[in-house]
Amino acid sequence: MDDNYYMKMALQEAQKAYEANEVPVGAVVVCKDRIIARAHNLTETLTDVTAHAEMQAITAASSLLGGKYLNECSLYVTVEPCVMCAGAIGWSQLGKLVYGATDEKRGFTQFAPKALHPKTTVISGIMATECSELIKNFFASKRASLN
Amino acid sequence: MDDNYYMKMALQEAQKAYEANEVPVGAVVVCKDRIIARAHNLTETLTDVTAHAEMQAITAASSLLGGKYLNECSLYVTVEPCVMCAGAIGWSQLGKLVYGATDEKRGFTQFAPKALHPKTTVISGIMATECSELIKNFFASKRASLN
Repeated sequence: MDDNYYMKMALQEAQKAYEANEVPVGAVVVCKDRIIARAHNLTETLTDVTAHAEMQAITAASSLLGGKYLNECSLYVTVEPCVMCAGAIGWSQLGKLVYGATDEKRGFTQFAPKALHPKTTVISGIMATECSELIKNFFASKRASLN
Repeated sequence: MDDNYYMKMALQEAQKAYEANEVPVGAVVVCKDRIIARAHNLTETLTDVTAHAEMQAITAASSLLGGKYLNECSLYVTVEPCVMCAGAIGWSQLGKLVYGATDEKRGFTQFAPKALHPKTTVISGIMATECSELIKNFFASKRASLN
């Protein structure tokens, strides 16, 4: 199993968000080659701005492992985390962060570049086209429905 | 009811955290002169790095109001929000943020200064001494118990 495989799983989660009329972002947490948490954005469904895919994935993984720290885990997320999620990833001391598309408007690399733990490995651009196409299609369909 | 009154209520929440052996940070959300949410840090109790006082207060207030946005609300929190919480406060489009003590190691003003919504009013330093004393006492008692 490589980064592309796990990003495909995160994309499946993003697709579920799309179908639920949520901004399509998905995430999975992997620990010792096993997916231990899957989540997608649920901000509309839960009426809660904190319900981003990454936040739920971190909470679920910590709950499963019985510990707050995710040093031995990798988080795969289809879009670059925002400031909030990067802050949470920082507190979790995540081992490895892999994201697909960049987010120039909200991404942490621009607005909170020191948010992560210094030991966290970061890989970006995995399946970036597929990840960003899903977002673009979502907003295009939203605009079309307004016309 | 003024800022000091609501900060006292946030301090009461922080005291509950202290008694539960959690880093003592408390928060309340006020809407139209009514406290609609109270929360304190529960990261140890819930084994969840995302369970900061502010995150829970935002989630609870949104749930009560039935809407994601808190434009007409004020959040009182005893310590300067971290990057994660500031990101959440930004997404919520909070009307007014009031905090007590500054946090030089983790505070958003240093690590994510643009995280908040541009329309959010920020007031700092309300009951700062009381808010920071509680934190200092907590860590002093932790160190003492290790000796």
